[in-house]
Amino acid sequence: MLEKKISSAVIKRLPRYYRYLSELLDKGIDRISSQELSQQMNVTASQIRQDFNNFGGFGQQGYGYNVQILKNEIGKILGLDRQYQVVILGAGNLGQALANYAGFSKRGFRICGIFDVDPQKIGKTVGALRVSDMSELAGFVRENAVDIAALTLPRAKAPEVAGTLMELGVRAFWNFAATDLDLPETVAVENVHLAESLMRLSYNIANIPHE
Amino acid sequence: MLEKKISSAVIKRLPRYYRYLSELLDKGIDRISSQELSQQMNVTASQIRQDFNNFGGFGQQGYGYNVQILKNEIGKILGLDRQYQVVILGAGNLGQALANYAGFSKRGFRICGIFDVDPQKIGKTVGALRVSDMSELAGFVRENAVDIAALTLPRAKAPEVAGTLMELGVRAFWNFAATDLDLPETVAVENVHLAESLMRLSYNIANIPHE
Repeated sequence: MLEKKISSAVIKRLPRYYRYLSELLDKGIDRISSQELSQQMNVTASQIRQDFNNFGGFGQQGYGYNVQILKNEIGKILGLDRQYQVVILGAGNLGQALANYAGFSKRGFRICGIFDVDPQKIGKTVGALRVSDMSELAGFVRENAVDIAALTLPRAKAPEVAGTLMELGVRAFWNFAATDLDLPETVAVENVHLAESLMRLSYNIANIPHE
Repeated sequence: MLEKKISSAVIKRLPRYYRYLSELLDKGIDRISSQELSQQMNVTASQIRQDFNNFGGFGQQGYGYNVQILKNEIGKILGLDRQYQVVILGAGNLGQALANYAGFSKRGFRICGIFDVDPQKIGKTVGALRVSDMSELAGFVRENAVDIAALTLPRAKAPEVAGTLMELGVRAFWNFAATDLDLPETVAVENVHLAESLMRLSYNIANIPHE
């Protein structure tokens, strides 16, 4: 656990650093300067050095950064040095897309269950999982030490299901429902509001520089 | 087109205002004060007034805001007062989820085509569309005045497909591939990096206040 409070702007950049460092390792690159990283990521080198200084540097004068060490350290800060048990609520296309995405388990996010209320979906196979009846959720969460619930539910259902999961001890929500969950500060929430993302895009279309 | 440059922090909040105002209208509420909106949205009333002042106010002393007018004005700023033709590249679970989401067409985003290279997917029905062969993309884009391309492609394929679409005149990309597209400033890009979102969640799990 870190002593120092890190700004949310820095935190927002860390996953992107992590992704780039992973790509460098995949290409067999094990050492990089802040200048090189800067060019690839389209962030200034001084920004990179400042960001990394928040966590004690990791760099060596004249050598640059060791990609593996840097990736590991950023991974630790992001909490990627442990496993998470994830359940998906809602087995529609989006729930299935999340269940089938191999990249999550690689980073320690293990999808252990997927639930729906629709009899047409219950019992079907999604990736390596069988879609379970929502009525089995409470027992499942108690037995499986679930860390994260991904909510791919209709807007009207999400707050109630989140409340139930919270009572069962779930402390983190990955919310795809088009509503804000009104949950206490002791719960972590990350929203993915797709309709809002699309509106930002249409704003940008209306405001791109002219050629 | 706006004369004044609006900060990206304000722009980021507009889609959320738009969503709340839509919900108010659905509930039959046609008038609201900045105080009431503040309580519901968990933003300070002075923040709301400041944000709306960027666009000339919209409020009336002692009356508050007319929800419909405010929603329309924000909609105009966001470019939601027109129709967009959208194609989806990649007919996997995520592409299908986007194609099936009714909320997009309601806001003027008309999904007019979905493409894939996989013979198992080509010809299948997704929502009201038939999955087309990627080889038909160029002709389709030329005939249909496509505005936006949603990329739900593997990381390795996304930059090439985006480049092709740009040459065909597409000027906006909704990018779900886990890579940054290196496109000129005359193109609008909105990224949805799901793996990065999940990393922010795991960071927050490690850093939530203790009960």
